[in-house]
Amino acid sequence: MNLPEDQKIWVPWMRRAIQLALLAEGSTSPNPLVGAIVLDSSGGLIGEGFHTGAGNAHAEIEALAQAGDKSVDGTIIVTLEPCCHQGLTPPCTEALIKAGLKRVVIGMVDPDPRVSGNGIARLKESGLEVIEGVLKQECEGINREFIFRIRNGRPWGILKWAMSLDGRIGLPNGCSKWITGVPARDSVHHIRSKCDAVIVGGGTVRADNPLLTSRGKSNFEPLRVIFSRSLDLPKSAILWDTKIARTLIAYGPEGNEALFYDLPAGPEKLRLNTNDPSELLYSLAKKGCNKILWECGPQLATSAIEANCVQELVVFVAPKLLGGKSAMSPLNNFGFESIDSTYKLQHSFLDLKGEDLSWRLLL
Amino acid sequence: MNLPEDQKIWVPWMRRAIQLALLAEGSTSPNPLVGAIVLDSSGGLIGEGFHTGAGNAHAEIEALAQAGDKSVDGTIIVTLEPCCHQGLTPPCTEALIKAGLKRVVIGMVDPDPRVSGNGIARLKESGLEVIEGVLKQECEGINREFIFRIRNGRPWGILKWAMSLDGRIGLPNGCSKWITGVPARDSVHHIRSKCDAVIVGGGTVRADNPLLTSRGKSNFEPLRVIFSRSLDLPKSAILWDTKIARTLIAYGPEGNEALFYDLPAGPEKLRLNTNDPSELLYSLAKKGCNKILWECGPQLATSAIEANCVQELVVFVAPKLLGGKSAMSPLNNFGFESIDSTYKLQHSFLDLKGEDLSWRLLL
Repeated sequence: MNLPEDQKIWVPWMRRAIQLALLAEGSTSPNPLVGAIVLDSSGGLIGEGFHTGAGNAHAEIEALAQAGDKSVDGTIIVTLEPCCHQGLTPPCTEALIKAGLKRVVIGMVDPDPRVSGNGIARLKESGLEVIEGVLKQECEGINREFIFRIRNGRPWGILKWAMSLDGRIGLPNGCSKWITGVPARDSVHHIRSKCDAVIVGGGTVRADNPLLTSRGKSNFEPLRVIFSRSLDLPKSAILWDTKIARTLIAYGPEGNEALFYDLPAGPEKLRLNTNDPSELLYSLAKKGCNKILWECGPQLATSAIEANCVQELVVFVAPKLLGGKSAMSPLNNFGFESIDSTYKLQHSFLDLKGEDLSWRLLL
Repeated sequence: MNLPEDQKIWVPWMRRAIQLALLAEGSTSPNPLVGAIVLDSSGGLIGEGFHTGAGNAHAEIEALAQAGDKSVDGTIIVTLEPCCHQGLTPPCTEALIKAGLKRVVIGMVDPDPRVSGNGIARLKESGLEVIEGVLKQECEGINREFIFRIRNGRPWGILKWAMSLDGRIGLPNGCSKWITGVPARDSVHHIRSKCDAVIVGGGTVRADNPLLTSRGKSNFEPLRVIFSRSLDLPKSAILWDTKIARTLIAYGPEGNEALFYDLPAGPEKLRLNTNDPSELLYSLAKKGCNKILWECGPQLATSAIEANCVQELVVFVAPKLLGGKSAMSPLNNFGFESIDSTYKLQHSFLDLKGEDLSWRLLL
């Protein structure tokens, strides 16, 4: 980090602000994670806050509320540039100015085009000292998915699969319960709890009748999305019960809407113009999704990768040998002719979950 | 470890003897690894030795040679029960008795039926104090493959494969060079350097024309074995050059021996009565192999597992996506109908070799 010597004093405070921000992980979409700390004029801690969810107060407002009158001539340390626009809540810049602060220390500039430097300009205009870029990389790291969605218009995609040591996601007869053990499956519930939506294809609903929830690991269960070309879905499925979590049926131009008459009314419907996974993701971004999880079979997984809708992979490998030339593998053909042309991933995190291996990688 | 209190003083010496034994790892087959230490009558170190290879002096003899006359009334600490039979070298028990030692501390009983307690009996008979079972588990651990071969009549089998993250060992067009990177391939050379033989099928010779050496990582290159049903082998292959390492062509009853006329004279030949991989392994055990490495394609690998000829797996997983319904997978059909009936392995060691994952497991 190339911070000037006199700015290094803000680093420990920014680290604390990041810790605060992370307390709401998985709950703030479409908003980012933000943490804030207020110090009085002599540098003493007088307020802490973090953003708990869309529609709730921003981190700065929470921290200033704790600080009260003592914030005059004080400093606010905040992981993200304060907003300067009226969203679901009023602009934070005005609250900072009104609180009489003399200094604002910022981790990263807000990539949201409605803010993106305008917040900083407004604060400087009003005579506040602004220090930028303290632990910038770390502040960007906790909002990787939010930043990705703002820049690309679609959520960060994670693809997950579980396979045997010999690369099979099922036996030739289709049986796949359970390849991995309880700790690995528990870990999948944990990943779901940090995602805004979980997507499967119609085949997975027909074959596995999945529940697709975090099993209560989050207050906000992810939106359960079925991406079906044909709408040939079973009349009875756990996903049709929307009391625990919402279900969305997305379908392309070939979808036979008459088949909806056979299904219960609970699930929402989303008609798309194409079968392109990226069209689905643009729609989910508009619904407020920053991060989604693909838990689909080889066909949809292959399309999602080819459509650039997968940024991260989580692969569970069970220490089992299934065998089977005709058994399902995680992915279908990409049409590669040489190893050099194949997709290369970047190691991110490796762990053992019980007996199973869990490998996270970036695509 | 449930050692009596007064025997715990031998533990650090036995640990040192194990370290000595391991100095010859990969060079002693068909013999075990053995290390020995001689202390004088007041407990001072006067000799160290280890077995360097079949036909060379045993560890005890090496250590006693260093100790010389000072071994009178001394103690020898040795990882394996001293032999009491005339092999390539004379029985060690007699040398111990002749040296005037008063005590022998032994890690493990020799599983070789020619010794197996008889060495200990001979020593006790001659009035020496014998202490057994000091670091027994560790002493057995360094000779796992030797013990396995003595008990089962065939070498310990390791099966290795390298696959992509989606479980493919090649593209649909057969291309597989290189799925893993240099550090993983280097690690394979290292594994070969600890094995007595490396086995491939005819298909691997035809498709990959492999060299199958340790690339000089061992003084003793493993015996390179081609297990071919048909003897339909290429006229020109790197393996036919036996200057660097020996090559053995093993074949079953269907092998067309007339095809040997097309091949150079270098490789040895081994005719078997069946195509059963275990018959090959019994033959290799008779040739002195304690540990062999299967580096074969899915068909032979599957047969080897089914014939109980694989005790350990080393799987390299490259962070690449190859795809391909028709691409080669590590194993063929076992005919399993449920996940419960599949082969389950036990985690042994996990590592990253460069960008690739290396997972060792016991079958």
